[in-house]
Amino acid sequence: MLVLGVDPSSTSTGYGFVEYSKRKARYIDCGCIRPKEDAFEDRLVYMFDEMTRLIGEYAPDEGAIETTFFGKDATAAAKLGQARGCLIIAMRKADLPIAHYTPTMIKRSVTGNGQATKQQVQFMVARTLGMKERPKSLDASDALAIALCHTQQSGRVLCEGRGQRKPEIEALLSRMVRR
Amino acid sequence: MLVLGVDPSSTSTGYGFVEYSKRKARYIDCGCIRPKEDAFEDRLVYMFDEMTRLIGEYAPDEGAIETTFFGKDATAAAKLGQARGCLIIAMRKADLPIAHYTPTMIKRSVTGNGQATKQQVQFMVARTLGMKERPKSLDASDALAIALCHTQQSGRVLCEGRGQRKPEIEALLSRMVRR
Repeated sequence: MLVLGVDPSSTSTGYGFVEYSKRKARYIDCGCIRPKEDAFEDRLVYMFDEMTRLIGEYAPDEGAIETTFFGKDATAAAKLGQARGCLIIAMRKADLPIAHYTPTMIKRSVTGNGQATKQQVQFMVARTLGMKERPKSLDASDALAIALCHTQQSGRVLCEGRGQRKPEIEALLSRMVRR
Repeated sequence: MLVLGVDPSSTSTGYGFVEYSKRKARYIDCGCIRPKEDAFEDRLVYMFDEMTRLIGEYAPDEGAIETTFFGKDATAAAKLGQARGCLIIAMRKADLPIAHYTPTMIKRSVTGNGQATKQQVQFMVARTLGMKERPKSLDASDALAIALCHTQQSGRVLCEGRGQRKPEIEALLSRMVRR
């Protein structure tokens, strides 16, 4: 079963593909969609086209997307909302069922801490998926975390919780300062 | 030349088709897209599909959409943003060029007053387009106003300005209270 995780943004949308079977998750691919177009609507079209292309290429079975935290900035929320709307249309038009997760759920699911930094998320994503190198971008590792969160919520893949990790891993995680 | 005006909303998106030639605008059709689905993403898909169907049916040459006013409510802005993103994708995927207008530009363009009420806009839209009845919904008349604004911005159709209207029309307009 292949899961697509999506971290929506109007400037750099992260995507991550995670395969799971027998309660184990395996890294497939990850990256960012970074539209270069000047007009905002052309950037939306680029994101829609890229997401459609990726889904066509990898044929995921399920999708998961972050219910983005909007804060107090209505203009930023509107921009992000438009990007999210395009991505959802691309996923649903490809008949992909979509699950929605809050940032806190995603972080807690992958690191055991709902307030984890992006670096801590990246570290735990790479560790859980047994990746030789960490994902190059934080948007891409966030997207992998969303896919991992989806597999965990349905109880299909287990990540190490706080109490289950080796002390040296715990120490490494705690040294990752919030930037 | 046929113009499609769109007033985006996550609950009731207005659309209006206006044809213009020889500096005159003519009413073609208007209405609302009101998704009934429970899941927000299904409502987005419904709006995308309906907008795609309408564009296929009427084959407009140009599109105009409101750059919605977001206020201070980030959650509302995000919802509206997602709806707007879907509608833009439907329009651009049908190769429709899109112009963006602020609510103030639209109101000023149609009524001469950037702070006009929806009722005043509706009245002037019906008058300018020579409609026998006013559009049944305010969302639909807003969408027609957006299409009219587009034709005016490009200097192709002239609406009556404040100084050009008959006194009885001016009196009627001023009696329309803000609701």
